Amino acid sequence: MTISPQTILEAHSRIQPFIHRTPVLTNQTIDEIAGGKLFFKCENFQKIGAFKIRGGLNAVLSLTSDKLKNGVATHSSGNHAQAIAFAARQVGTRAFIVMPDNSPKVKVDAVKGYGAEITFCEPNQQARESALQEIVDRTGAEFVHPYNDFRVIAGQASCAKELLEEVPDLDIIVAPVGGGGLLSGTLLSVHFFSPQTIVFAAEPEGAADAVLSIRSGKIEKAPFVKTIADGLQTSLGDKTLPIIKDHVKDVLLVSDEEIKSAMRLVYERMKIIAEPSSLVTLAAILRNKELFARKKTGLIITGGNIDLARLSDWFAN
Amino acid sequence: MTISPQTILEAHSRIQPFIHRTPVLTNQTIDEIAGGKLFFKCENFQKIGAFKIRGGLNAVLSLTSDKLKNGVATHSSGNHAQAIAFAARQVGTRAFIVMPDNSPKVKVDAVKGYGAEITFCEPNQQARESALQEIVDRTGAEFVHPYNDFRVIAGQASCAKELLEEVPDLDIIVAPVGGGGLLSGTLLSVHFFSPQTIVFAAEPEGAADAVLSIRSGKIEKAPFVKTIADGLQTSLGDKTLPIIKDHVKDVLLVSDEEIKSAMRLVYERMKIIAEPSSLVTLAAILRNKELFARKKTGLIITGGNIDLARLSDWFAN
Repeated sequence: MTISPQTILEAHSRIQPFIHRTPVLTNQTIDEIAGGKLFFKCENFQKIGAFKIRGGLNAVLSLTSDKLKNGVATHSSGNHAQAIAFAARQVGTRAFIVMPDNSPKVKVDAVKGYGAEITFCEPNQQARESALQEIVDRTGAEFVHPYNDFRVIAGQASCAKELLEEVPDLDIIVAPVGGGGLLSGTLLSVHFFSPQTIVFAAEPEGAADAVLSIRSGKIEKAPFVKTIADGLQTSLGDKTLPIIKDHVKDVLLVSDEEIKSAMRLVYERMKIIAEPSSLVTLAAILRNKELFARKKTGLIITGGNIDLARLSDWFAN
Repeated sequence: MTISPQTILEAHSRIQPFIHRTPVLTNQTIDEIAGGKLFFKCENFQKIGAFKIRGGLNAVLSLTSDKLKNGVATHSSGNHAQAIAFAARQVGTRAFIVMPDNSPKVKVDAVKGYGAEITFCEPNQQARESALQEIVDRTGAEFVHPYNDFRVIAGQASCAKELLEEVPDLDIIVAPVGGGGLLSGTLLSVHFFSPQTIVFAAEPEGAADAVLSIRSGKIEKAPFVKTIADGLQTSLGDKTLPIIKDHVKDVLLVSDEEIKSAMRLVYERMKIIAEPSSLVTLAAILRNKELFARKKTGLIITGGNIDLARLSDWFAN
């Protein structure tokens, strides 16, 4: 399978009855600081509080009833877990979710709330994968990967598609990159529906694998993983890397301090709650103002599921 | 002067070019918890981050150029200060603002940002009033009271008017009560434009003056003042008390713990930033569910100007 314009249109139609058409907000003060016009696609107001519902729903709704009967399974630190749990409930099947044992409580509670069965594991890739394999072997559930899956990528692509429908003449879109599902989908929607628009990726310095992977052409690990952007700590996959390598303009790195400054600005000025992973984009714009001056730039606020107890770490005086 | 339907219509037309038409949001999870349909009028997304811009603007825009030439002055712990500073800038006159020296930094910075001249005083009513009198005597500036002023009340009334235009068949509106400007305006808009709608006031237990004042018919002080709802610590005025006494259904008291629970719900579920003073209304609904069950209730999120450093006090685990 590859992804065509038709794939994205079908994915969007398939998931539309279950999701919100999220608003695109603007803010005069932040525009003045940035020196350009910014358009925030607010997926923090999406069902489950994050864009991940798009990819998860598209994958689950694409399954035949035969495939669905043993349930669906995944591993995720949070938002993809909620997406699969929510999607499983919509189609009336079971969801088996492997979550690292340091996942934010609000995300664990939400997954439980959708009736999914949670298995906790140590917070590393190997522990996740072996716990998941054990579940799939035992139950026969269908595994839906958080990002390295064309059905997921096509679902995520619907987000940039909506943003481009709302603001058709964007010069630039900036998307965060973790595993690359949203970024790949964004790149494909722009490539098919708005080819004159440039796409930058934004990545935390403390999870800088995408910038290396694009350079070497193979999936690299980050030199170190330490960032408040907890949704962006994973490496690219073999389905996301080629799309990203072909289409992205550049990867812009940001520090945790820059992410915190961007969060402060959005919380204080826009009065909305956004995850740290959401705001690598604004942080990248503010660090590289010359790239965005006098331009119209779209950014996706990817989610708003934070642990309120962590706010004091981010906004200590 | 008294306030007629025409007064409110004129106030609304006068300020409309300068303010946002703020959205009315709903949230399925909170509706399920409350057992009724709730409609949140989001004045946290208003210019200056609070509804107070409405009253302040209406008062300043109503002044003759002769009155305006020496500037305008007020005392306020925050949002009314920003309103007057913003309004003065629109009409090109000076603003003199007396602020208590414990005002949130974000509010002080915003007032400065609009070019107003700030005088700090001790955080009590007497210190505010004497500092203000000194300024008025020295400069000849026109004093705009934060709430005990019919021009201010008429401006605040435009908020409930918009809410009723958006959701015409509301059974109930709940408004916070501090000095009573918003509550009075809400009561008058409902009385004139939607007389079948009931209005409750919500008040912190730690600033319970309105409940006593309505009972005795004269302006009472709260038995003690200690609440996180820092915008609601003032007593009623001689212009707000009679309107409130005539029209309010009841005053519902809430504790700081109930305010914090309501904040947690709104932050986690709606992903928006609201001031503690904003959420006495939701707290009152959740404490008195029987009054709101199966009803359509409107509440005004009055503002979103918080000091991010205080989040850790509110959401400590």
